[in-house]
Amino acid sequence: MKKILILNGPNLNLLGRREPAVYGTATLDALLEGLRHRFAHRATIVSLQSNHEGALIDALHAAQQEGVEGVVLNAGAYTHTSIALHDAIKGIAPLPVVEVHISNVHAREAFRHHSCLAPACKGVICGFGLDSYRLAVEALLAE
Amino acid sequence: MKKILILNGPNLNLLGRREPAVYGTATLDALLEGLRHRFAHRATIVSLQSNHEGALIDALHAAQQEGVEGVVLNAGAYTHTSIALHDAIKGIAPLPVVEVHISNVHAREAFRHHSCLAPACKGVICGFGLDSYRLAVEALLAE
Amino acid sequence: MKKILILNGPNLNLLGRREPAVYGTATLDALLEGLRHRFAHRATIVSLQSNHEGALIDALHAAQQEGVEGVVLNAGAYTHTSIALHDAIKGIAPLPVVEVHISNVHAREAFRHHSCLAPACKGVICGFGLDSYRLAVEALLAE
Amino acid sequence: MKKILILNGPNLNLLGRREPAVYGTATLDALLEGLRHRFAHRATIVSLQSNHEGALIDALHAAQQEGVEGVVLNAGAYTHTSIALHDAIKGIAPLPVVEVHISNVHAREAFRHHSCLAPACKGVICGFGLDSYRLAVEALLAE
Amino acid sequence: MKKILILNGPNLNLLGRREPAVYGTATLDALLEGLRHRFAHRATIVSLQSNHEGALIDALHAAQQEGVEGVVLNAGAYTHTSIALHDAIKGIAPLPVVEVHISNVHAREAFRHHSCLAPACKGVICGFGLDSYRLAVEALLAE
Amino acid sequence: MKKILILNGPNLNLLGRREPAVYGTATLDALLEGLRHRFAHRATIVSLQSNHEGALIDALHAAQQEGVEGVVLNAGAYTHTSIALHDAIKGIAPLPVVEVHISNVHAREAFRHHSCLAPACKGVICGFGLDSYRLAVEALLAE
Amino acid sequence: MKKILILNGPNLNLLGRREPAVYGTATLDALLEGLRHRFAHRATIVSLQSNHEGALIDALHAAQQEGVEGVVLNAGAYTHTSIALHDAIKGIAPLPVVEVHISNVHAREAFRHHSCLAPACKGVICGFGLDSYRLAVEALLAE
Amino acid sequence: MKKILILNGPNLNLLGRREPAVYGTATLDALLEGLRHRFAHRATIVSLQSNHEGALIDALHAAQQEGVEGVVLNAGAYTHTSIALHDAIKGIAPLPVVEVHISNVHAREAFRHHSCLAPACKGVICGFGLDSYRLAVEALLAE
Amino acid sequence: MKKILILNGPNLNLLGRREPAVYGTATLDALLEGLRHRFAHRATIVSLQSNHEGALIDALHAAQQEGVEGVVLNAGAYTHTSIALHDAIKGIAPLPVVEVHISNVHAREAFRHHSCLAPACKGVICGFGLDSYRLAVEALLAE
Amino acid sequence: MKKILILNGPNLNLLGRREPAVYGTATLDALLEGLRHRFAHRATIVSLQSNHEGALIDALHAAQQEGVEGVVLNAGAYTHTSIALHDAIKGIAPLPVVEVHISNVHAREAFRHHSCLAPACKGVICGFGLDSYRLAVEALLAE
Amino acid sequence: MKKILILNGPNLNLLGRREPAVYGTATLDALLEGLRHRFAHRATIVSLQSNHEGALIDALHAAQQEGVEGVVLNAGAYTHTSIALHDAIKGIAPLPVVEVHISNVHAREAFRHHSCLAPACKGVICGFGLDSYRLAVEALLAE
Amino acid sequence: MKKILILNGPNLNLLGRREPAVYGTATLDALLEGLRHRFAHRATIVSLQSNHEGALIDALHAAQQEGVEGVVLNAGAYTHTSIALHDAIKGIAPLPVVEVHISNVHAREAFRHHSCLAPACKGVICGFGLDSYRLAVEALLAE
Repeated sequence: MKKILILNGPNLNLLGRREPAVYGTATLDALLEGLRHRFAHRATIVSLQSNHEGALIDALHAAQQEGVEGVVLNAGAYTHTSIALHDAIKGIAPLPVVEVHISNVHAREAFRHHSCLAPACKGVICGFGLDSYRLAVEALLAE
Repeated sequence: MKKILILNGPNLNLLGRREPAVYGTATLDALLEGLRHRFAHRATIVSLQSNHEGALIDALHAAQQEGVEGVVLNAGAYTHTSIALHDAIKGIAPLPVVEVHISNVHAREAFRHHSCLAPACKGVICGFGLDSYRLAVEALLAE
Repeated sequence: MKKILILNGPNLNLLGRREPAVYGTATLDALLEGLRHRFAHRATIVSLQSNHEGALIDALHAAQQEGVEGVVLNAGAYTHTSIALHDAIKGIAPLPVVEVHISNVHAREAFRHHSCLAPACKGVICGFGLDSYRLAVEALLAE
Repeated sequence: MKKILILNGPNLNLLGRREPAVYGTATLDALLEGLRHRFAHRATIVSLQSNHEGALIDALHAAQQEGVEGVVLNAGAYTHTSIALHDAIKGIAPLPVVEVHISNVHAREAFRHHSCLAPACKGVICGFGLDSYRLAVEALLAE
Repeated sequence: MKKILILNGPNLNLLGRREPAVYGTATLDALLEGLRHRFAHRATIVSLQSNHEGALIDALHAAQQEGVEGVVLNAGAYTHTSIALHDAIKGIAPLPVVEVHISNVHAREAFRHHSCLAPACKGVICGFGLDSYRLAVEALLAE
Repeated sequence: MKKILILNGPNLNLLGRREPAVYGTATLDALLEGLRHRFAHRATIVSLQSNHEGALIDALHAAQQEGVEGVVLNAGAYTHTSIALHDAIKGIAPLPVVEVHISNVHAREAFRHHSCLAPACKGVICGFGLDSYRLAVEALLAE
Repeated sequence: MKKILILNGPNLNLLGRREPAVYGTATLDALLEGLRHRFAHRATIVSLQSNHEGALIDALHAAQQEGVEGVVLNAGAYTHTSIALHDAIKGIAPLPVVEVHISNVHAREAFRHHSCLAPACKGVICGFGLDSYRLAVEALLAE
Repeated sequence: MKKILILNGPNLNLLGRREPAVYGTATLDALLEGLRHRFAHRATIVSLQSNHEGALIDALHAAQQEGVEGVVLNAGAYTHTSIALHDAIKGIAPLPVVEVHISNVHAREAFRHHSCLAPACKGVICGFGLDSYRLAVEALLAE
Repeated sequence: MKKILILNGPNLNLLGRREPAVYGTATLDALLEGLRHRFAHRATIVSLQSNHEGALIDALHAAQQEGVEGVVLNAGAYTHTSIALHDAIKGIAPLPVVEVHISNVHAREAFRHHSCLAPACKGVICGFGLDSYRLAVEALLAE
Repeated sequence: MKKILILNGPNLNLLGRREPAVYGTATLDALLEGLRHRFAHRATIVSLQSNHEGALIDALHAAQQEGVEGVVLNAGAYTHTSIALHDAIKGIAPLPVVEVHISNVHAREAFRHHSCLAPACKGVICGFGLDSYRLAVEALLAE
Repeated sequence: MKKILILNGPNLNLLGRREPAVYGTATLDALLEGLRHRFAHRATIVSLQSNHEGALIDALHAAQQEGVEGVVLNAGAYTHTSIALHDAIKGIAPLPVVEVHISNVHAREAFRHHSCLAPACKGVICGFGLDSYRLAVEALLAE
Repeated sequence: MKKILILNGPNLNLLGRREPAVYGTATLDALLEGLRHRFAHRATIVSLQSNHEGALIDALHAAQQEGVEGVVLNAGAYTHTSIALHDAIKGIAPLPVVEVHISNVHAREAFRHHSCLAPACKGVICGFGLDSYRLAVEALLAE
C-alpha cells in the first residue's frame, strides 16, 4: 500500500459550485471519497486543500517527513505563478509529484498555458475532468 | 440596506504611514469609519485587511456564504500578480466585485499598469485617493 | 456650481444603436439629459462628441479657456492610440480630466487594455455602463 | 442595383502622382469612372476620399443611414493604426465592408502587414493593383 | 483559355464535413465543378489537394513545367508555417500565385493572422467563403 | 471493445535506439505489444508511425472513417510546430485525441514547452515514460 | 529666395503656455516672427498649425502644388504614431522635409523615442529648443 | 549594538537538506548560531523563516515597530515574483533591507535573474554561500 | 574511402533555374558530378533530394543503417522551421552532420537567420556558393 | 571664440573611401578644414578620430579639463551600443555634447535606429551629409 | 597575505567628480588608499583603471599570470554590454572575480539591470557605496 | 600566392589554456604555424590577435592598404555585439572576410547565436575546432 497525498490549491474548495461548465458538479469531498474507494486495496490516500501558497509549500515539506510516497498536485492558479512551489517540489526530490488539472488548460486563456511547476514534476496530466486525479494515482502506483 | 465588503490587501494596513506622498495620511480605520458614516442609511459595511493572498481568497469565498452583496477590493500588489484572486472572483460570480486603487496606477511604474483581476471584476476605479472607495460603494449601490 | 465638460470620442454618437450587448440601448442625448437632471443643482454640464481626434484636442484646449473646471472624457478607441490627446491633457493641466469607459475594457480584446491617456488623467472609471459617467462627475465634484 | 460606397483614405487623392512604381499612374477619378462604367447595370457607385480619420468614420456612419449596401474601403495608412475605424465598421454591422489594397502590403514594410480593420471586415483583397477595387465590388454583389 | 491550377492544402479534403460553421457544407468536388462550369469558356481548370507540404511544393514545381498560367493556392495551415512553400512560389516566378482563404483569417485565432506565403504571392483574397476561389480566378484572368 | 489508434510521429521509429537516457530502451513494437496484451479484453489497438506530417493528417482523417473511437497521439516534434495537425484534430471532432509524450517536455528545451495540438485535444499526458501511452488508453476507455 | 513651410502639429498652438519647463515660454507667433526676421533675405516663410492629422496631410499635399521648396515639420505626438504622415511625406518626394523637435525626445518617455516620420524625411534635428527650427531652415537653405 | 533581523523565505527551512550541491549542508539553525556568535559584541540578531508571503510582509511591518535597525532578507523564490514584498520594503523606509542569496542567481535559470525586491532594497549580495549573510550584516553595521 | 551522403531539401531541385542571382546557374546534377569527380579518391558520395520533410528524416535514419559516415545537409527552408529534423540528427548521433547553405543566410531575410538544426549538427558552413558543399566534405574527411 | 571639439568614432577615418553612396566622397581632413575655414572667426576647432571606444571616452574626459566648451560627437557604430560613452557624456555634464550622423540613420537598418547616447546629449542632428557637422557647431555657438 | 586586484572600468577615474549624488565625492585614489590601509595585514592590493574594454581583458589575463588570488571588478557600463569580459572571466577560472557596483543598479535605468558578467563571477555586491569594494575584499579573503 | 590575414579577437590569446573542453589544447601560435605549413605554397599568412575592439577595426582598415586579399576573422565575443566591426568589414569591401568560430556557437548559450558581423561577411564557418580556420583559408583561395 503506497501512501499518496492529494494536494489541492486555491479555489478547489469551490469544486462543484464554481463555473460548473468548466469544473463539473462533483465536490472535492466526493472526489476524494471516490478515489479512496477505487484504490482501497492499493493506496492510502491523504489529502489537503488550501488557498494559501505557503500552506501548500508546508504540506509538501511535511509529506516527505511523514512517509508520503507520491503526490498528486493540483495547484490551481499557483501553477502559473509560483516559483516557490517549484522550489519546494525540487526541495523534496526524489519524492515524485504529478501535476494535474481538471480542465484542458491549453484550451483556455493564454495565462494558463505556462506551468512554473511542470519542470520540477514527474509528469503532467490535464483535461480529463476529475478522472485526471485517478490517472495520476495510477501513474504513481506504476512507479 | 446592502451588505458591502471592503477588502484590502497587502501593505494597506500601513495606510497613513507608508509613502504619504502617494497614499495620503489617513489611516485604514479612519477610511472605514468615514465610509460607514457616509453610507449609514444605505449600506452595511464589513471589512477585512490581510497581507496574505490566501486570506483574501478565503474572504471572498466567505463573502458569498455570508450574504455580502458587493465587494470593494483593493488587492494592492496582488492586483498585478494574482491569477488565484482572479479565479476566486470568477468563482463567486455573480457577486459583483469592484477593483479600486488609491493612486492612479497608470501614472506609476510599468509593473503596476496590468491588472490580473480586472477582467473578472465588474469595473475599476482608480486615482481618486480614498474617494475611490466611496465611488466604488456608490457604484455597487446603483446596481 | 462647477462647470463640467462631457467629451465623447469616436463612435459614441452611435450609442444606443451600436453593439447594444456591449453598450446598452440608451442614446447619447438621453445620457446627457440624465446627467444634467441628476446634477441640476451641483454642476453645469456642457458636452461635445466628435469622431475627429483633432476636434477632441481642440475641445480640450478650448475647455481651459472657457472656464471648464473638470472634464469627463470617453475617448473611445483614441484612448488606446492617441499620444496627441495625452499631450493635450498634460497641456491643460491642472484642469482635471477623468477617463471613463462604459464597458469593462479589461474584459475585452487585448488592444483595449492599454490606455495612452490614463497617465495624464486624474483617474479612471470603467465598467459601470452609463453609470461610469455619473461616477466621474461625482469624483470631479468631490475635488 | 446595389448601392456601393467606395471609400478612400489618406494619400489616395495622390493616386497617379505618388510612388507610381507602387501605385500605378491612373488617377482616383479614372479609377472611379472605370468602376461606374463596368458596373453600370449592376451597382450604383458613390465615393468619398479624405485624409481625415474622423471624416472616414463619419462617412461609414452616414453610409448606413443613406442606404448603402456594401462598402469598399481602402483606408490607406489608417488600416494599420486605427482602432476607431475598426469600431466604426463594427458599429454599422451587418453592413458588409471589404478591405482593399492596391499593392501587396505583405511584400512591403513590416508596419504594413498588420491590419486593425480586417477582423471587423467581411474580407480582404490586396495586391491586384486597381483591379482590387473591381474584385471587391464583385464580392459585394455576390452576397 | 488560360490554364489555372487550383491547389488545396491540408484538411481541405474535409470541406463540407469539417467545422461547417466556419467552412460551409459544400464539398471540394462541388467547389471545383462550380468553378469549371462558371469559367467553362475562359479557363481550363486543373486541381490538386494534398495534406503533404512536400506534395504541394512538387505540384508548384510541376505547374511551371506543364504550362499552368496561374495558381490559386489555399495552403490551409501551411500558410502560417511554411517557408518552404514561400520559397517554392518564389522559385517558379513569374508564374502568378494568388493566396486564398475561405474564412476571414484575421477574425480568428492569432496564429492564423500571419502568412508566410503572402510576400511571395501576387495578392491575397480572404473571407468570402467559397467565392474567394472564384474571385481569385477572376483576378488571374484579368492579368 | 473500443477501437483505439496509437499514432506516432517523427523519429519514434527510433524508439529504443535514440537518446536512451531520454526515451528508454524499449522499441516501438515492444510498446505496442505490451499495450495490446494489457488491454486485450478492453480495446482493439491499431497503430501507425510516420515521419511525414501529411501521413499523420491522412491517418487522422482515415481514423474517423474506419470506426476508430479514440486516438493516442505522440506527434513528436510536430507537436510544437504543426497547425495543420491541430486543424486535422479539430476537423475530426468529436473523435477524442489524447496528446502524449514519453519525456516530461516541460523539463527540456524551451522549444518543446509549447504544443500546437493541445488546444484541440481532449487532454495531455506527459512524463511517465512509455506508461504515458497506457494512461492515455485508460483515459479514453473511461470516457 | 526659397519658399519654406513651417508646419506644426498637435498642441504646438499651446507653445508658451504648455509645460514651460519642457517647451519654454515663447509663443508660436513669436517663434515664426523671429524666423521671418532672421531669414528675411534668404527665405519666404509660410506656416500652418493644426491639431488634425488630416489637416497636416492636406497641407503637405498643398505645399507641393504651391511651390514650397522645403518643409520644417514638427508633427508633435503624431511623429510617433502616424504612418499616414509618413506616406504623405513620401508622396510629395522629392520635396525635402526636415523633422524637428523642441525638446530632446530621446531623454523623455520611451513612447517618444520612435519616429514614424524620420525614415521618410531628409533629416532630423531635436533638442535645441526653438533653435531647432532655425537650424532646420539653415539645413534646407544649404541644399 | 544594532538590532538586525535575518528574514528567510520559502524553502529555506530545508537548508542543509535541499539540493546540497547548490545550497550546501549547513542548516538554517547552524547558520543563525554562527552569525550570533560572530557578531556577539556588535549586533543583536533576531530571525524568522516562513514559507508564507504574507507572513514575510507582516514580519517586515513588525520589524519597524519593534526597533529593528536593519534587515537581511533572503526571500527565496518570492524575490522573483513578489511586488507585495517590494511594496512592504518601500513601506518601511528608511529602514535598510539588504537582499541576499546563497547561490549566484545570475548563473542559474533565467527566471531567477530578475529581482522584484532589489529596486526597493539598500543593496544586493549574492553568490558567496552562507557567507552572503555575514557580508550583509557587515554592510548594515557599516551604515 | 569515407561514405558521404549529400542530402538536399525543398526547392534545391530547382538549382540553376530558381533565383539565379542568389543560387547561381549550375544544376544539382552538375554540383554532384563535380563533387564526385573532385573527391574520387577520397570519398564515396551518395545523394538524395526531396521536397518532403518526412523523406529527409527517413533518409537520415537510413543513412545510419547503410554505413554512411558523414552527412552534408542543405535542408533549405526546413532549416528554419523543422524541430523534427533536429531530432532526427540527434537521433542518429554520433554520425556527423554538417549544415550547409549556398547563400549567406545572415545577409537575407530575418526568417532565414535562425537554424533549428545547427544545435544538433557538427558545424555550419554558409555563403560560399556551391563551394559550401566542397568545404563541408573536406570538413567531414578531416574528422 | 568658443573652443569646440569635433570627435569622430569608428570607421570615420574611412570617410571618402567607405560606401560613398552613403557617406559621400569628401575625406575627414577636408571636412575639418572646411569647418575651420567657415567658423574661423567664431570658434576654435580641435578634433580627434579613433576606432577605440576607450579612446573616445578618454577624449571626452580630457575635453572638460582642456577648456572645451562644446562637443560635436559622431560616435559611429558605438552610438548604438555604448553605455560607457553615455556615462562619459553624463560624467562631463554640463559640457554640451551634440550627437551627429552624416546619413539619416532612421532610413537604414533597424540596429541603427536606437541611440544609447542621445538621452545624455544636448540634441541630435542627422541626415544632412557633412552639413550635419556644420549645423551642430551652429547649435553650440547659439547656446 | 592574499594578492587582490581592484579593477575599475570606464568613467570610474571620474569618481568624486561625476554625478556626486549617485557616486559620492571620494576619489578613486582615496578609495584605494582606504582599502590598502584597512587590509594592510590581510591583503596585498594592486589596482588598475581603464576606459578601454580591451585593457580590462588584458588585465584579467595578466592577473592570472602574476599570482593575483582574487579580483574585485567594477566594470562600469561594460558590465551591461561586454560578452568579451564575460569570456575573459571564464577564461581565467578558477581565479575568483567579484562584481561590484557603488550604486544599486537595480534602482536605476532598465539598461543597468542586466549584467553580462555576473554569470561568470563568483558573486555580486551592489548598492553600498564605496563600502561595496570593502565587502568584496572581505568575501575574497573568506574563501 | 594570396595574402591572407588571420585576425583573432578577445580571449583567443588564451587558446590552449581557456576552457579546453570547448576550445582544445593547441595554442594560437601552434594554430598559425600549422596553417603556414599547410598553405606554404598557396598563401602568405599574416596574423594579429587583440583584445581591443578598436585594434581589430584598425587592423581591418590596414589590411586593405597592405595588399591583403582575404581575411579570416574570429572576432570572439565581439562577434555578438560589435556593429563597429560590422561597419569596418563593410567599409573595406570588396575585400572578402570569412567569419569563423572554433566551437559550434549554435549549440552554446543563446547570446552566442546572433552574429553582428555575418551580414557583412562573405560567409561563415563554425564548429570544426581549429579546422574551421583551415576551411576558411580554403574558401578564400577558391575565390
